[in-house]
Amino acid sequence: MEAGSINVLITGTNRGLGLEMVRLMVEGSIPVKKLIACCRDPDGPRAEALQTLGEQHPDIISIVPLDISDICSIKECAQRVGALVGSEGLNLLVNNAGIINRSPLLESSCEDMRTLFNTNILGPMNMIKEFLPLLRTAAESSKISGMSIRKAAVVSISSLLGSVQNVTKTYENFSAVPYRVSKCALNMLTTCAATEFRKDEILFSLLHPGWVRTDMGGNNGLIDAPESVQKMFDLMASMTEKHNGSFLDYQGQTIAW
Amino acid sequence: MEAGSINVLITGTNRGLGLEMVRLMVEGSIPVKKLIACCRDPDGPRAEALQTLGEQHPDIISIVPLDISDICSIKECAQRVGALVGSEGLNLLVNNAGIINRSPLLESSCEDMRTLFNTNILGPMNMIKEFLPLLRTAAESSKISGMSIRKAAVVSISSLLGSVQNVTKTYENFSAVPYRVSKCALNMLTTCAATEFRKDEILFSLLHPGWVRTDMGGNNGLIDAPESVQKMFDLMASMTEKHNGSFLDYQGQTIAW
Repeated sequence: MEAGSINVLITGTNRGLGLEMVRLMVEGSIPVKKLIACCRDPDGPRAEALQTLGEQHPDIISIVPLDISDICSIKECAQRVGALVGSEGLNLLVNNAGIINRSPLLESSCEDMRTLFNTNILGPMNMIKEFLPLLRTAAESSKISGMSIRKAAVVSISSLLGSVQNVTKTYENFSAVPYRVSKCALNMLTTCAATEFRKDEILFSLLHPGWVRTDMGGNNGLIDAPESVQKMFDLMASMTEKHNGSFLDYQGQTIAW
Repeated sequence: MEAGSINVLITGTNRGLGLEMVRLMVEGSIPVKKLIACCRDPDGPRAEALQTLGEQHPDIISIVPLDISDICSIKECAQRVGALVGSEGLNLLVNNAGIINRSPLLESSCEDMRTLFNTNILGPMNMIKEFLPLLRTAAESSKISGMSIRKAAVVSISSLLGSVQNVTKTYENFSAVPYRVSKCALNMLTTCAATEFRKDEILFSLLHPGWVRTDMGGNNGLIDAPESVQKMFDLMASMTEKHNGSFLDYQGQTIAW
């Protein structure tokens, strides 16, 4: 491996923040050796921009199908990625894929809740569990001391809406109960992982990307995807063991649970 | 209704904290008119102590079957309770029923997570939604100003283990990832409810009962059920609108999210 170059996997890369992450990473924002760009349907019409990027950077980008709500799909993906990264392992897993539901409590059905639970909680949980061997390989083969994304890390994209402390400030404009519950649960899950896998020297962190103008964020967002992603990449690159279990916004401010 | 006497429903009353709540309530710890004591199988061998209490206080206690993981069961229960409380409505709903799972992340299966999600999150959510008309009736028919359990309130039994802030302090002894995730999500859900139903003057609060010597807490618990319940009742009785959306331990200390 080149000095400083890492193997990275990002979920949900066919559009929005995920696509922007791939774009900025191949431009060198984070020096990357192999970039595994995952999405549900790489051959579908909604993945054309990702395919174009893949064609421009065939030595770096591998596009791999992945549906994080399906454990079989995660296991197949982990096997393919294991073959791609070999003895270097996977240095950075970015749990970016996720779905939103904007309903208030009274209009949130069990089905709404279960759908968000499957994708936004079980998805990242199963990604962590199935990619743990590859993350451990990266941590063990690394010659870097301490924790960092250059060694082994999982960054999960959460949201300010997952902050219980901030509910009263944000509820009137965004009730989004199934989404809030799922992101809050993801925060707990990631904090547990940060504690459980500290001995493996794998760094876990949560990031709030800001309110971004994407399909998910809508047109009223406050920032564009390149600004959000560039700032999140700067943050990721600066992370040490002090950031294990942290919950930061894209500007580096700690968000209350 | 007698001055100060209220209609109360408690879930999971066949043992542990729930059974103790029924016992202390009929002894007058909280002046109660009708006490609807719910459990999954009132006629089974594990509900004998509850049945005995019911026979001793037939004018107060109504034992109603309820499986909070089953939406049909909740709807049937709400219909029966509506007939029991009539135009007075339901003043206090105590979401006490819940299940535990002590696994660390690496040993937590999707099935474990879904089971806890159904009972500990969807259960209280559906209880709130289905009993909302009865809670609103109580709030509207009350002549008390402000919020209190004498008017209309939902108290959900959460846990210190649902506090993200406290994970690193408690993880070594209690990993319990599915339980933590479910209680953390319950905290978010309840905070959303506290915000969404503020206009209805229904109070929502979360309580941590302490580490209690019950079937769930085990023999190493630090306090007995009567102490925990008596202190939680004292707290409930003192709640005002200031406590809407609060997360307190049984001694009245605020717990960080």
